Amino acid sequence: MRNDGRTHDQLRPVKITRNYIKHAEGSCLIEVGDTKVICTATLEDRVPPFMRGGGKGWITAEYAMLPRATESRNARESSKGKVAGRTMEIQRLIGRALRSVVQLEAMGERTIWLDCDVIQADGGTRTASITGAYVAMVEAMSKLVENGTWKQYPLNDFLAATSVGIIDGEVLLDLNYKEDSTATVDMNIVMTGEGKFVELQGTGEEAPFSVEQLQELLALAKKGIDQLFAAQREALSELTLSFENKGEGDQEKEAEENHV
Amino acid sequence: MRNDGRTHDQLRPVKITRNYIKHAEGSCLIEVGDTKVICTATLEDRVPPFMRGGGKGWITAEYAMLPRATESRNARESSKGKVAGRTMEIQRLIGRALRSVVQLEAMGERTIWLDCDVIQADGGTRTASITGAYVAMVEAMSKLVENGTWKQYPLNDFLAATSVGIIDGEVLLDLNYKEDSTATVDMNIVMTGEGKFVELQGTGEEAPFSVEQLQELLALAKKGIDQLFAAQREALSELTLSFENKGEGDQEKEAEENHV
Amino acid sequence: MRNDGRTHDQLRPVKITRNYIKHAEGSCLIEVGDTKVICTATLEDRVPPFMRGGGKGWITAEYAMLPRATESRNARESSKGKVAGRTMEIQRLIGRALRSVVQLEAMGERTIWLDCDVIQADGGTRTASITGAYVAMVEAMSKLVENGTWKQYPLNDFLAATSVGIIDGEVLLDLNYKEDSTATVDMNIVMTGEGKFVELQGTGEEAPFSVEQLQELLALAKKGIDQLFAAQREALSELTLSFENKGEGDQEKEAEENHV
Amino acid sequence: MRNDGRTHDQLRPVKITRNYIKHAEGSCLIEVGDTKVICTATLEDRVPPFMRGGGKGWITAEYAMLPRATESRNARESSKGKVAGRTMEIQRLIGRALRSVVQLEAMGERTIWLDCDVIQADGGTRTASITGAYVAMVEAMSKLVENGTWKQYPLNDFLAATSVGIIDGEVLLDLNYKEDSTATVDMNIVMTGEGKFVELQGTGEEAPFSVEQLQELLALAKKGIDQLFAAQREALSELTLSFENKGEGDQEKEAEENHV
Amino acid sequence: MRNDGRTHDQLRPVKITRNYIKHAEGSCLIEVGDTKVICTATLEDRVPPFMRGGGKGWITAEYAMLPRATESRNARESSKGKVAGRTMEIQRLIGRALRSVVQLEAMGERTIWLDCDVIQADGGTRTASITGAYVAMVEAMSKLVENGTWKQYPLNDFLAATSVGIIDGEVLLDLNYKEDSTATVDMNIVMTGEGKFVELQGTGEEAPFSVEQLQELLALAKKGIDQLFAAQREALSELTLSFENKGEGDQEKEAEENHV
Amino acid sequence: MRNDGRTHDQLRPVKITRNYIKHAEGSCLIEVGDTKVICTATLEDRVPPFMRGGGKGWITAEYAMLPRATESRNARESSKGKVAGRTMEIQRLIGRALRSVVQLEAMGERTIWLDCDVIQADGGTRTASITGAYVAMVEAMSKLVENGTWKQYPLNDFLAATSVGIIDGEVLLDLNYKEDSTATVDMNIVMTGEGKFVELQGTGEEAPFSVEQLQELLALAKKGIDQLFAAQREALSELTLSFENKGEGDQEKEAEENHV
Repeated sequence: MRNDGRTHDQLRPVKITRNYIKHAEGSCLIEVGDTKVICTATLEDRVPPFMRGGGKGWITAEYAMLPRATESRNARESSKGKVAGRTMEIQRLIGRALRSVVQLEAMGERTIWLDCDVIQADGGTRTASITGAYVAMVEAMSKLVENGTWKQYPLNDFLAATSVGIIDGEVLLDLNYKEDSTATVDMNIVMTGEGKFVELQGTGEEAPFSVEQLQELLALAKKGIDQLFAAQREALSELTLSFENKGEGDQEKEAEENHV
Repeated sequence: MRNDGRTHDQLRPVKITRNYIKHAEGSCLIEVGDTKVICTATLEDRVPPFMRGGGKGWITAEYAMLPRATESRNARESSKGKVAGRTMEIQRLIGRALRSVVQLEAMGERTIWLDCDVIQADGGTRTASITGAYVAMVEAMSKLVENGTWKQYPLNDFLAATSVGIIDGEVLLDLNYKEDSTATVDMNIVMTGEGKFVELQGTGEEAPFSVEQLQELLALAKKGIDQLFAAQREALSELTLSFENKGEGDQEKEAEENHV
Repeated sequence: MRNDGRTHDQLRPVKITRNYIKHAEGSCLIEVGDTKVICTATLEDRVPPFMRGGGKGWITAEYAMLPRATESRNARESSKGKVAGRTMEIQRLIGRALRSVVQLEAMGERTIWLDCDVIQADGGTRTASITGAYVAMVEAMSKLVENGTWKQYPLNDFLAATSVGIIDGEVLLDLNYKEDSTATVDMNIVMTGEGKFVELQGTGEEAPFSVEQLQELLALAKKGIDQLFAAQREALSELTLSFENKGEGDQEKEAEENHV
Repeated sequence: MRNDGRTHDQLRPVKITRNYIKHAEGSCLIEVGDTKVICTATLEDRVPPFMRGGGKGWITAEYAMLPRATESRNARESSKGKVAGRTMEIQRLIGRALRSVVQLEAMGERTIWLDCDVIQADGGTRTASITGAYVAMVEAMSKLVENGTWKQYPLNDFLAATSVGIIDGEVLLDLNYKEDSTATVDMNIVMTGEGKFVELQGTGEEAPFSVEQLQELLALAKKGIDQLFAAQREALSELTLSFENKGEGDQEKEAEENHV
Repeated sequence: MRNDGRTHDQLRPVKITRNYIKHAEGSCLIEVGDTKVICTATLEDRVPPFMRGGGKGWITAEYAMLPRATESRNARESSKGKVAGRTMEIQRLIGRALRSVVQLEAMGERTIWLDCDVIQADGGTRTASITGAYVAMVEAMSKLVENGTWKQYPLNDFLAATSVGIIDGEVLLDLNYKEDSTATVDMNIVMTGEGKFVELQGTGEEAPFSVEQLQELLALAKKGIDQLFAAQREALSELTLSFENKGEGDQEKEAEENHV
Repeated sequence: MRNDGRTHDQLRPVKITRNYIKHAEGSCLIEVGDTKVICTATLEDRVPPFMRGGGKGWITAEYAMLPRATESRNARESSKGKVAGRTMEIQRLIGRALRSVVQLEAMGERTIWLDCDVIQADGGTRTASITGAYVAMVEAMSKLVENGTWKQYPLNDFLAATSVGIIDGEVLLDLNYKEDSTATVDMNIVMTGEGKFVELQGTGEEAPFSVEQLQELLALAKKGIDQLFAAQREALSELTLSFENKGEGDQEKEAEENHV
C-alpha cells in the first residue's frame, strides 16, 4: 500500500476542466491528485525570428509555479531576475513534446504559446502540464478550424505523459511528491495515442537501473497514459478530431535547439 | 446604464473562497466580477535583515499576473529578467496597506508574506488583491492564535479596497477593465473598518478633478468598501476577531521606504 | 515651531535657476530648502514604439539620486543592476503628472525626456522634481515655438507639487526629511494652475486619517503650491505662455500603464 | 556508410590526455572525433549552503562552449548576461550523472567542481563531457587519496556516456553534428561500469519511436560505452581504483533539484 | 589657435568649490572649462571583504554621467541594467590613482568611497574626476585628523591629472571634447606632486606615435598638472597638509585586480 | 636571477600554433611560458549598427578565462550574469590595438571578431592575446585575399605586445604571474612593426616612477616585442604580407568609445 492508499499501478484521480480562463483561446485546469495546473494556449499570427519565411508554425511553452504551490514558499523567478535551470528544462520538454504531434507545416506562420502555471504542486507537475497543455492547445486549434482558417486539425495524434519510479525495488506509477523524494529511480515518459515514445527521461542518480527494470517501468507508464488519453478524449468530446493525415516529421530540429 | 448593466454605485458580485491552496498557512480565491486573484499567506519565523533585533514583525506582499490573465498575452517578468514598475508599485501598495492595520510590535520577529497572483483580470486587480490578502493574512494569523503562540490577533481593524473613477463627468464605483480604460479620473481607495483612509491614490492624467468631485468619489468608495467588509466577515465568520486593543501606529516608516 | 523654525503652513525657500546645463534643450536647478534637483529636458524626434503612427507626442521622466545626496551613501542602481521600486514609482508619477497638462496631440510625434537628478536630498524630492521638470519642459518647448515648429505651446496650464503631512495630530506643509520620517500621514499633491488635482497620493500607514483631516491637508497644499506657481512664473518670465487652447484630455491612458 | 566513413555501430576515435591544465587538481582534454573538451576538476573544502552540516560531499558541474567551437560564432553567455536553458540542462545532467557513482557520504564536506569547456564541437559534447569529467574527477580524488585524507576512492564504479540515434530508420552509434541534425530520434545514455543505466534521455520530436527501436538503441549504446571505459581505464592506468565498497545510494535527491 | 582660442600649452580655466554637498564628509564641484564634476567622499568604518583583518584601509571610486551631461542624451546605466566597460575602466583608474598617494596601512580598516558624477561634460571628465576626487578625499580625511582619530594625514603627496594629445601632428594640452574627437593620439597622465608618474595611458589607435612625440606629450602634461596642483592647494589652503612620512608602497596589488 | 631562471631582459619561450580550431576562419594557440591562449578570428559580412552605411569595416575583440585557468577557480562571468570591469578593459584594449594596424576603409562593411580565451594563465594574458589575435586575424584575412575578395591585405604593419615592470628597483621584461604580483610598476606596451607605440599603459600604484625609469622600460619592451614579431613572421610564413599601402589612420575614433 502506498502513502495515499493506491496500488503500485494506480493513477491518482484525474480531472480536466476546459474553458477555465476566459481571455485565452484555449485553457484548462488539470488536476492529478493534489497537483493542479492552469494551462492556457495563446494563438499568435507570427513565428519567432529564427523561423520567419519558412511557412511553418511553431509551438512553444512556458512553465512556472506560484510561490506557495509548494510546501515551503519559493521566491519568484521574477524577483530573482532569472529563470532557474529546472524551469527551463521543463519548458523545453513541454514544447518539444507537443511539437512532436503537431504538423507545423500545416499551421502556416502561426505560434501557439502554452503557459503551464502550477497553482498547487504534489509531484508530477511537468507531466500534468504536458497532458493539460495538449487539451488547451487543441481547444485553441478548434478556433481556427471552426472559423475555416484550417480545414482540419494539424495534429498527428493524442499526447499525454506520466511519471514512474522505483522505491525499495518496487516499480510505481504516477509518483506523488513524497514518493518522488524517496524514489531511487525516476522516469518521465511522454507517449502518443498509438503507443510510441516521444520522450523518455530516466534518472537513476540514487541507484542505477537495469534493462529489466526499464521494461517494467515502461509497461507501467503505458497503462497510466492510456487512462490519461481517456480523460483527454472526454474533455475534448465535443470537438471532432481525426488523425488520418499522419505527418512526415520533417520539422526542423535545429530550431528547437536554439529556441530558449 | 454601465457596459455590464450596473448602476453607477453598484459593486460587481464578490466571492471569497477560503482554504484555496492546501500548502499555505492562509489562502483564498477572491472573485470580483471577472477579476480572480489567488491570495496566499506564508508565515516565516524571522524578519528581513533591516528589521532584525527590533522585536517586531513584518508584512510584505508580492503581486503578479499569469501571462494570459489579460486579453492579450503578457510576457512573464521572469523571462524579461526584471519586475515592471507597475508591479513594484502595486506590491508596495499592498504591503503598506496591510501593515496599517497590523500591530507589528505584537507579532514578534515574524514575517507574513502575501502573494497575490491574478489568474484572470478585468480591472481592479490591485484592490481585489488587498481585500483578498487581508482574508488570507487573518487565516494565517489564526494558526498562531489557535496554537497559543499569540493570545489575540495582532490586528487593529478590517481593511478593504476598491476603485472609483469618472467617465463623461459621471462618478462610478468599482471600474471594470473597459471602464478603467476610458475613465479620465481613476482613484484607488483603501479604508479601515472604522471608515478611515489608509491609502488614497487618485490620478487625473486625462482631466484634473475638483474638490467637489473628490468628495463624491470618496463617498462612493465608502459605500462599496462597506459591502467588501461584509464579504470578508462572512468568509472569516468561523474565526473570533476582536479589535479592542487598538495599536499606536509606531511602526517604523523608514523600513517600508527601503524595502523593495 | 518646526525643527527648522517654520510655521505649520510655511514653505521652505524656493529657488529655480534656469539654463543650468548647457547641452540640454531645457534645464534648471530647483532648490527647495536643502533639497536640490537638476532637471533637464531633452527633445527627441520620435515616440516610443507603442505610440508610433498615432501622430501624438509623449512625455516621459527618469529620476535618480547621486549616491551621496542622502545622509548615508546609497549604492548606485547601476551597480545593483536594477532600478528600485521606489525609483520606478517616482518616475512614473513625474511623467504622468506632466502629461496631464500637455496637449500630446499638438506635439506631433516627438518625445520630451525629463531627467530629474537629486544632487542633495532633504525631503520632498519627488515634488521638487515635478515642479522643476515643468520649468525645464517649458524651456525645451520654447525652442520649438521660437523656431516656428509649433505655433503655440502645447500646454493647458501650470503644474506644481508639494507634500503635506500630519505629525502629532498637526497638519504641516512641505515636510523636510526629519519631519517626513516621523509623520503618521504623508501626502503628495500635484495641482494645476487653475487649482484642480492631478495626483493625490496619501498614505496613513502609521495612522489612518479621517475625511476632516484630508480637507485640512488639501487646503494647506493649495496654499503652498500657489507659491510654487509664483516661482515658476518668475523663472519663465521671459517666455510668453498662454493657455487659452485648453485640451480635451483624450490622451491614451493605456499607454502610460504599459510604459515602464 | 556514414558521412565520415564509419559503420553504424562504430565509435569515433577517442583520446584522453590527462594533466592538461597545470593549476587544476584534475584535468584532461577529451577528443571524440573532432569534438574536443577541456575538463578540469577543482577541490573545494566546503559544500554549498543547502548541504552544510550534513557531513557529506557534493559534485557539481559547469559546461560552456568557446564562441567559435561551432561552425558559426555563438555570442558568449557572459555578454548576454544569462545562461541558456540548453547549457543549464547539460550541466545539471553532468553533475547528476557523476554523483550517481560517487559516495558523497565518504567525501566529507568537500565539493568537486567539474568544468567542461568545449573548445571544438562536432556533436556529442555533453556525453564527451561526462566521460572526460569522470577522468578529471578521479585524478582530483587521487590527490586526497595520495595524501592520506581519504583511505580509498569514494567511488562505486566507472561512468561514461554516448549518444545513439535513428536516421532513415537505421540506428547509429555516436552521432556527429551532421548526423545529429538529421536524426529523427536522438538519445543520450549514461552507464556505469557494471552496465546499468544512470541516465536515459531520448527524444523523438521528429518521429516517435517504438519499444523495439528502443531496445536496439540501448544495445548499440552499451557497445560504444564499453569502448569508452577502456579509454578511461587506460588514461587512469597509473592509479589504483577499486570499487568493492559499493554505496547505498542515499544521497539526498532534493539537493540536486534545488541546486542550480 | 585652438577651437576655443587657447594656445597649444594652455589649460582651460579651473575652479574647485569645496563643501559642495552638505551630507558628504568631503565634497567639491570641479570645473575645468565646461566640464563639471561633483566629487564626494564618504567615510566608512570597514573595508571590503577581500581586505578584512589586514588592518589596512581602502580607497574605491565610482564614476557616472547624468544622462544629459553630453550633447545627446545617454540612457542611464541603471535602466540598461549594467555598467558600461568605459565606466568601469574609468572608475578603476580613479581608485588606483588615488590609492597611489595614500598610506593604506595608516588608515586602519576604513574605506573612503569617492563618487565622481559628471553633470556637464566637455572632454577630460576622467582627469577632472581624479583632480577633484583628491580634494574631496583630503576634506574627508581632515574630519578624522581634526577629531584626533588620525595624528596626521595618511598621504604621501598631491595628485592631479590631465590629458594631452596630437592633432595634425601638433601636441596639445587639456583636450576639450571637439579636440578629443579629432586627435590621433590621446593620452591621460596622472602625476604626483613631486613630478612622478602614477598612470600613463596613451592610445594611438588612429596613428602610432614615436618616442620623440611621447617626450613632448609628457612635458606638456607636466606643465598643466603643475597648474592643477596650484588650484588644489588653494582649495585646501585652510588645511595643514604635510607629506614628510613618505610611505613604502606596500599596498597589496592583487586587491585592486580583484575589486570591481 | 628571476624566479624562473631568466635574465632581466629575457622573454619566456613563445610558441604559436596556427589552424588550431577547425571551424574558425583564423585561429591559433599562443603559448608564452605557461600562459596559453586560444585565439580565433571570425569573419562576419556586416558591421555593428553604429557603423552601418559608412562603407568601412570593424575589428572587435572578446576575452575570457576558463574558470580553472588560474591557481584558484574563478566563477564564470556567465554565472555571475555580468562581465567584470577587468575583462571589459582588456577586450577594449585588444580591439583598439588591432584596429590601429588595420585599414578599416579597405575592408568593406565586414567585421572580424577576435576571441581570446585563456586556457592557462601565468601572467601577461592580455599581451599574449594581442600577439596571438594578430596571427588569427591575418589568417582570417588570408581567406578573403585568396578568394579574390580583397586584392591585398588591409594591413599597415605587424603588431605585438608585452609587459615590463619594476621589482626592487630593477626593470624586468615579460613578467610572469608571481613577478606581476610583486612589481611596484607594471606596464603593458603594444608596438607596430616599425617600432611605434600603439598603446602604453603604465601603472605605479605601489610606487610612482620617474621619466628615466620610463625610458628603460620602453627600451626593454622594444627588445621583447622584436622577438614576438619574429615568432609571428614564422607562424605566418606561408602567407605573403606586404605593408606598402600605409593607411591614413582616419578611422572614426568615436566608434570605439561607444562600442562595448
